[in-house]
Amino acid sequence: MPKSKVQDKELPRQSLIELGKKLAEDIEKGRNPSIEVSVRALSNVSFDKKTKKLSLGERTATREFFNVAHIRKFTQTMAVARIAKKELLDRGLHASLRDIYYQAKKTIPGTDINIVDEQQETDSAIEDLEIVTGYSREQLHINANKMGSVAGKVIIEDKGDTIDWSRLGSGGWSIPSNVEDIEFKKVSAKYVVYMEKAAVWERLHEDKFWDKQNCIILSSQGQTTRGIRRLLQRLRTEHELPIYILTDFDPYGIYIYSVIKFGSISLAHMSETLALPDVKFLGISADDIKNYGLTNAIRLKDVDISRLKQLSEYDWFKNSKAWQRQFKMMKDMNGKYEIQALSSRGITFISEKYLPEKIRKEDFID
Amino acid sequence: MPKSKVQDKELPRQSLIELGKKLAEDIEKGRNPSIEVSVRALSNVSFDKKTKKLSLGERTATREFFNVAHIRKFTQTMAVARIAKKELLDRGLHASLRDIYYQAKKTIPGTDINIVDEQQETDSAIEDLEIVTGYSREQLHINANKMGSVAGKVIIEDKGDTIDWSRLGSGGWSIPSNVEDIEFKKVSAKYVVYMEKAAVWERLHEDKFWDKQNCIILSSQGQTTRGIRRLLQRLRTEHELPIYILTDFDPYGIYIYSVIKFGSISLAHMSETLALPDVKFLGISADDIKNYGLTNAIRLKDVDISRLKQLSEYDWFKNSKAWQRQFKMMKDMNGKYEIQALSSRGITFISEKYLPEKIRKEDFID
Repeated sequence: MPKSKVQDKELPRQSLIELGKKLAEDIEKGRNPSIEVSVRALSNVSFDKKTKKLSLGERTATREFFNVAHIRKFTQTMAVARIAKKELLDRGLHASLRDIYYQAKKTIPGTDINIVDEQQETDSAIEDLEIVTGYSREQLHINANKMGSVAGKVIIEDKGDTIDWSRLGSGGWSIPSNVEDIEFKKVSAKYVVYMEKAAVWERLHEDKFWDKQNCIILSSQGQTTRGIRRLLQRLRTEHELPIYILTDFDPYGIYIYSVIKFGSISLAHMSETLALPDVKFLGISADDIKNYGLTNAIRLKDVDISRLKQLSEYDWFKNSKAWQRQFKMMKDMNGKYEIQALSSRGITFISEKYLPEKIRKEDFID
Repeated sequence: MPKSKVQDKELPRQSLIELGKKLAEDIEKGRNPSIEVSVRALSNVSFDKKTKKLSLGERTATREFFNVAHIRKFTQTMAVARIAKKELLDRGLHASLRDIYYQAKKTIPGTDINIVDEQQETDSAIEDLEIVTGYSREQLHINANKMGSVAGKVIIEDKGDTIDWSRLGSGGWSIPSNVEDIEFKKVSAKYVVYMEKAAVWERLHEDKFWDKQNCIILSSQGQTTRGIRRLLQRLRTEHELPIYILTDFDPYGIYIYSVIKFGSISLAHMSETLALPDVKFLGISADDIKNYGLTNAIRLKDVDISRLKQLSEYDWFKNSKAWQRQFKMMKDMNGKYEIQALSSRGITFISEKYLPEKIRKEDFID
């Protein structure tokens, strides 16, 4: 069960205060100030077959203040912790990764050393802080990218506004980078279709697909942002809506599905709040291309073929007969296929025939 | 004055019918069916100093059916015209550029020749159709990319929904690819700030900048879509709102401003409905960097320097003392500067000090 909101909002701040207290205590007692963080390297990431999520292993590293090899990273993590507490949580403000970078980028007085030089350094410090505190960067008020639109029979409350996702004209609601604070007031929709392309969203929206099928349509443009992944997860866990993923039939599309479902290697420590092991792949599948007499496949490029090989070797796809079959068919036909190529069967073919039929027959890949 | 909506919506369709009738007449009278299109090449694009817009010159080319050099383009243009009339305007549907490509991509029966092979071909045919009919592709129901968010004291009506841009929580309204049919019901805001970055939009939105300053905040992510440019133009021409552009101080940011203001070479034929000669450049300027004691400039790369040279030679910048001065200062300081670097002065520095002061002092570049 989600904790009450007031408590929720105070806990991340408390965890930063605790961290500060622990370090102050280290200093008072004459100890070398240190923090312990999980090792974020491929060698410490594993696929948990039971939870079906990527997760970090148990290897940790201690980072000390009095250690020439550690002090730079140690100081950066503390600088970000200070910004998160004093500038963001204390003041109820949010900031982007880039903002944090510029906030932290100061020269240490009397030296020519910058606390950070590249954004990669603050980004990495923020990931450390997620691990140390156990709270996501969104809960620490550090936002991911803003991207994507949503429509469907859902009413939410956000920042004091009541917003009906079914009454927003041709545009829909613009998904914020941080969806932790929105409250679902009424969710009448029965499932969610997430698609990788905004143009497909506009097609389904114009055809009132979400109205006729009583679902939610949600899209980004390309790779899925953390805001969207969290929104999908909240719809799944708080409202038990099935989530169906609609991408191109190509290695990139299947990778998008893979990240939503299992998590990603670089964010393995966040799998608990980001991965969604029970989402289903709705299409486009190799079988669709045969069953719906689709033409207009695009020949695979070399990069597609090597990406396909990589995908097929992922732990979570390696033992999946269904996926190995798809990979083999893609390779054998030497072709990929875009969602929008369905238009060659007619502009509204996707919303009138393809999607309703696939969903009715539960023709998914798991 | 904008024409009434019913008339507006029928006119583009009529123009396609006229085009078809003209060709049928050519055939009946034993003439070689032909269309006349403006030449869309740099040599036929000029900067009109009076209107301050890029525009196409008077050179036209005739494209004939019975001409081996013309028949492919001729057929493609007709294929797109047929799709626009029969599949879109007749049925009240819209489609993306990619959809049109797949709709047109058919093999001519009894041959192995495709009407189109690459999307570039339908894109180009659509531009021809814009020139021949005098209507934008949006009016022909062919949509650009969907991107961007907006908030502010404006109430619109769209697809039967009444949408209040000031009551949409942290997300805002997601701007559709096609804004031709939205109706402005109430515009209380006094000006528009358009910014190139969604993260900056979220900063200003959280700080309720649009509420305190009674303005509209509007952003894309990177280059400005046609939907956004049309939205800006409608706010400018129908409601006389001043429009201020906020970009990074770098050649790419200034190029974004340039395209919004003067139009682009590839869309010179659409300048009438897309260019906005009286938008103002709000920042970041070289002077801001001095006046606000900003640090954290990023060294110019070689590509920046060559892009800067290109910009400074554009007809519309060549004779502008103000812009030549900016270009020189950028070169002399050998640095560019991101909007978000303002965060180093404090997270809310941009919305509490920088923007209000710049706007109050009307410290713009034209």
